[in-house]
Amino acid sequence: MARWEPNTSERLTEAAMELFAERGYGQTTVQDIAARAGLTERTFFRYFTDKREVLFGGSHEFQKTIVDAVRSAPKSIAPLDAVVDAWASTSDFFERRRAFARKRNALIASHPELQERELIKLTTLAAAIVDLLKQRGTSSAAATLATEAGLAIGKVGFEQWIRDPKDRSLTFHLNAARRQLEAVVGKGKQAEAEGSSKRSA
Amino acid sequence: MARWEPNTSERLTEAAMELFAERGYGQTTVQDIAARAGLTERTFFRYFTDKREVLFGGSHEFQKTIVDAVRSAPKSIAPLDAVVDAWASTSDFFERRRAFARKRNALIASHPELQERELIKLTTLAAAIVDLLKQRGTSSAAATLATEAGLAIGKVGFEQWIRDPKDRSLTFHLNAARRQLEAVVGKGKQAEAEGSSKRSA
Repeated sequence: MARWEPNTSERLTEAAMELFAERGYGQTTVQDIAARAGLTERTFFRYFTDKREVLFGGSHEFQKTIVDAVRSAPKSIAPLDAVVDAWASTSDFFERRRAFARKRNALIASHPELQERELIKLTTLAAAIVDLLKQRGTSSAAATLATEAGLAIGKVGFEQWIRDPKDRSLTFHLNAARRQLEAVVGKGKQAEAEGSSKRSA
Repeated sequence: MARWEPNTSERLTEAAMELFAERGYGQTTVQDIAARAGLTERTFFRYFTDKREVLFGGSHEFQKTIVDAVRSAPKSIAPLDAVVDAWASTSDFFERRRAFARKRNALIASHPELQERELIKLTTLAAAIVDLLKQRGTSSAAATLATEAGLAIGKVGFEQWIRDPKDRSLTFHLNAARRQLEAVVGKGKQAEAEGSSKRSA
């Protein structure tokens, strides 16, 4: 049994995803995953701390890609553009794992404890982005708003990408979500200009 | 000892907040809180399941206020307006407890497990708002974007309200945050119109 062959992590991930689909996430053990991959539990634990990490193992690369992109964005770029461009920089990362992303998304949606972990990871990422924008000289309020608006675009863009029967890129769907956010924010603005809003009371 | 006097819950809350400030949240027990309020532990447990609930006991009223406001918003009002107006409808709720809200906010900010609980409560609330907007006929993407943008406005408005030395209303700060979001989203749009964005590549 080749313990350090380059695709060990991929074999374990594939075995885990098969078993999660066949038996359910809760009913799958690390022993099952290792056996399906033709590896030992010891090998499994060399790559993942537990079965949950099979789903979150890529998060580090994803987060690093985002944070690096925000950090290296030119200061001339508006904060929201810096955040949306950072999301778009993960397009290749996700393109290589569209099938995995679809299965992972469905699994997380049906398990509250996985949703919580995803939520906490995204919140930590958001805090890092806010800090980077503030270092660029953006005010705390604008940094928070750009980060949250960017996350909303990322969330909607990702959901549309996951479901797209035409398999268009994440960047395509991020641009679409961004235009939708502009419409959603602009629509309110228009209503306000027409004096139909009670918020000015 | 009057067990059902009307302000028992307030007395327990006040005692808990005093002790959290004096000894720290982690070092305060339910026994301490009851003793400080001059009540029994048994009485405490009639109002709260644990000491954490002293901080989250008002969440139900807060969430109900928001959800009711979104549900009863006229269909002519744009989705984002419905969400921001719902936040503004909690202005009185918060005005009555500004001192508590300040202490609570500082406590939550310094305890990750409390932050996680707050985050999960807000996410549950967001899901409820998205559903209500979809029932109004808003698309899933626009409902998510309006909800997330509204939460961002709520978050920033609340943070500014908490810190405002002039004690202006939450509604005032929500309106300010909304205008800031319009600027943040519009700034990106302008950059795009000028062709300075690389997102169209």
